[in-house]
Amino acid sequence: MRASKLFTKSNKTVLADETAKNAQLLIRAGFIDKQMAGVYCYLPLGKIVLDNIMQIIREEMDNLGGNEINMTALQPKEVWQSSGRWDDKVIDVWFKTKLNSGSEIGLATTHEEPITNMMKHFISSYKDLPAYPYQFQIKFRNELRAKSGLLRGREFWMKDLYSYSRNQEEHDKFYKKMTLAYQKIYDRFGIGDITYKTFASGGSFSKYSDEFQTLSEVGEDTIFVSESKKIAINKEVMSPEILKELNIDKDELTERKAVEVGNIFNLGTHYSEALGLTFTDESGTSKPVVMGSYGMGPSRIMGLLAEHFADSKGLVWPKSVAPFKVYLVCIGDSKEIKTSCDDLYKQMIEAKIDVFMDDRDVRPGVKFADADLYGIPVRVVVSDKTFQTDQFEVKYRTNDSVKLMDKKSLLKSLVE
Amino acid sequence: MRASKLFTKSNKTVLADETAKNAQLLIRAGFIDKQMAGVYCYLPLGKIVLDNIMQIIREEMDNLGGNEINMTALQPKEVWQSSGRWDDKVIDVWFKTKLNSGSEIGLATTHEEPITNMMKHFISSYKDLPAYPYQFQIKFRNELRAKSGLLRGREFWMKDLYSYSRNQEEHDKFYKKMTLAYQKIYDRFGIGDITYKTFASGGSFSKYSDEFQTLSEVGEDTIFVSESKKIAINKEVMSPEILKELNIDKDELTERKAVEVGNIFNLGTHYSEALGLTFTDESGTSKPVVMGSYGMGPSRIMGLLAEHFADSKGLVWPKSVAPFKVYLVCIGDSKEIKTSCDDLYKQMIEAKIDVFMDDRDVRPGVKFADADLYGIPVRVVVSDKTFQTDQFEVKYRTNDSVKLMDKKSLLKSLVE
Repeated sequence: MRASKLFTKSNKTVLADETAKNAQLLIRAGFIDKQMAGVYCYLPLGKIVLDNIMQIIREEMDNLGGNEINMTALQPKEVWQSSGRWDDKVIDVWFKTKLNSGSEIGLATTHEEPITNMMKHFISSYKDLPAYPYQFQIKFRNELRAKSGLLRGREFWMKDLYSYSRNQEEHDKFYKKMTLAYQKIYDRFGIGDITYKTFASGGSFSKYSDEFQTLSEVGEDTIFVSESKKIAINKEVMSPEILKELNIDKDELTERKAVEVGNIFNLGTHYSEALGLTFTDESGTSKPVVMGSYGMGPSRIMGLLAEHFADSKGLVWPKSVAPFKVYLVCIGDSKEIKTSCDDLYKQMIEAKIDVFMDDRDVRPGVKFADADLYGIPVRVVVSDKTFQTDQFEVKYRTNDSVKLMDKKSLLKSLVE
Repeated sequence: MRASKLFTKSNKTVLADETAKNAQLLIRAGFIDKQMAGVYCYLPLGKIVLDNIMQIIREEMDNLGGNEINMTALQPKEVWQSSGRWDDKVIDVWFKTKLNSGSEIGLATTHEEPITNMMKHFISSYKDLPAYPYQFQIKFRNELRAKSGLLRGREFWMKDLYSYSRNQEEHDKFYKKMTLAYQKIYDRFGIGDITYKTFASGGSFSKYSDEFQTLSEVGEDTIFVSESKKIAINKEVMSPEILKELNIDKDELTERKAVEVGNIFNLGTHYSEALGLTFTDESGTSKPVVMGSYGMGPSRIMGLLAEHFADSKGLVWPKSVAPFKVYLVCIGDSKEIKTSCDDLYKQMIEAKIDVFMDDRDVRPGVKFADADLYGIPVRVVVSDKTFQTDQFEVKYRTNDSVKLMDKKSLLKSLVE
């Protein structure tokens, strides 16, 4: 992409009502725009980051046999009444509205009920199981406080996969595979080392669940962590009973702040019984389907990555999610420089290197500052100086040293 | 994709309350599921079709310099009050709800106001123009009647691009380019020959707009068409004045039913003035930005394609949007057949041919019926008979004759 064809630009103004560092940075870089507290638009570069995050999650869900679908935001009241969750006392973040015909409807806070209801059209026999539908979908939650930027949204993106299994054994096997897939995803985002599978509350239908918590000072959760034993417990469920179960002493644990980046649940037959999702097994007996649900918030993860990897100059995206791999800076007005820059740009595009070319008519300092603020992993400069030596100036976002490389080595290093 | 890994399946039951042929067919094929009237989920194969439709639109928008973004569903009341469109008498399909803090908010019916408000953060000088943000976004419209399946949704997908130009001349040039891009898109969907740029009402802010209308008996619009002159006029604006302007006699026009598949508007400075979006031109004068908006509904187009190309056996997707190019049917339990089928499947995947392999343990008739119902362009059969002659049975969805091809010719013909 050429900067001259991009409508966004960086700006220095910080919104008075925006206190979250992740949102401040992303707004300054023109990656997102604020509609209201907890409700953000994704602008071109921000959308690429969000898409990259979703694509990594998608690949791992597909690897497990997931089938991607797209449920709806508008949800009928009746399906939520079946499980008792229509009540505002049970789910206290409902947005509700009305059809012109008068019926009350809800905006998706989550999808266990509608998706389980829908699966009744496809599951009747053991031959139809297991099934793993998943989606990337906007969720709506009417949060009273939404002051953490992308970390807590009133409207946010969620990946939710639901597993439908014949029995507990089949479920447990898949649940373990999903746990590994989640860890692989956090590794791909570069936060594997600070992300812990954490013992947490199971909500209303099971005793415990597994959260994935990433250590961060801005986290809204408090967890107890043993870094050496890779064990973590959410403060909400901390008890002598749990410590005993996990065979760990309280002294081995440190209290830390963390951001919940995933949550997986053994749902058992809670929803399948409430909604009447049964199947006939090999012997002809009718049984409720065993379920699990597996959530992960791509927009929250985007906020976390923005916040965690930032430095004083701006964003620092991990390569796997950066909007571009290369920020190409052209300095100089001469025809030779412009041609040299254009040629390099085209060769990168041909070599399938994601490149952003700053071809704007602004001072070099402005371009360097944006290259840093946008957090693009590699900065390449074409200037009079580089042109004369037939080399290019290369600098990595996470390193202050600048090196010169000829075109062949440069392209080779970027493709690797 | 292997059928054994797909959770959906075809079914013969037709919903009593579903009268639209497009929705009936898509539900029978397991491509969509109905949540409520005008609100449908996209299941795996349906989602692929929808994604393919969006990708074609995306390519053409990017060609014109469009920047893809993602606005929000939740919209603050204030921005709509600026233009006077918060009133239910002005927009009568609003869904409205409330934040827990008490403020009223709306669900996106469209995005002129929020996007123009957002553009104030990026446009201040003539150097920032033109700008072409666009998005694929869920729109919510509280329709009283929603009985046409995907043709009229309460929750549906929309591509909307907004153009921001320095002056009318720059705007007009882009508007013409967009008209051509729309026609190219309909050509790519295979409906170019029955889609007419149609003179229509401009709504509250301009006299006329251009609709794109596809001839169809199930259309909710009535237009007057001259097939030879490629001229069409929406009945709503038909008048002696228009006939004179277009230099056509009423006798040359035929009354037809049609589906609106796109609508483009000259917005002038209506919204930029209402929301205060101005820029400083070359001479230092402050001016309101000249705007246009360009809508196209991918989900409605999916419904239209489903309805228009269907035959008595089911769906018939145009190649450009079909969920797969090939439906591979494996007949026989022998190890040889299974291996032959698996090998062909893998070779197709390697050759980047989108293939769906029906590896289910069901009768051949069931597989043939699904191949037809799903509307996949090419059916390839591997059976004892084909295995012995080292050939494969090939049948196109739009043609009843079956031919035999060896593997090399088959793969070659599918890649072309």
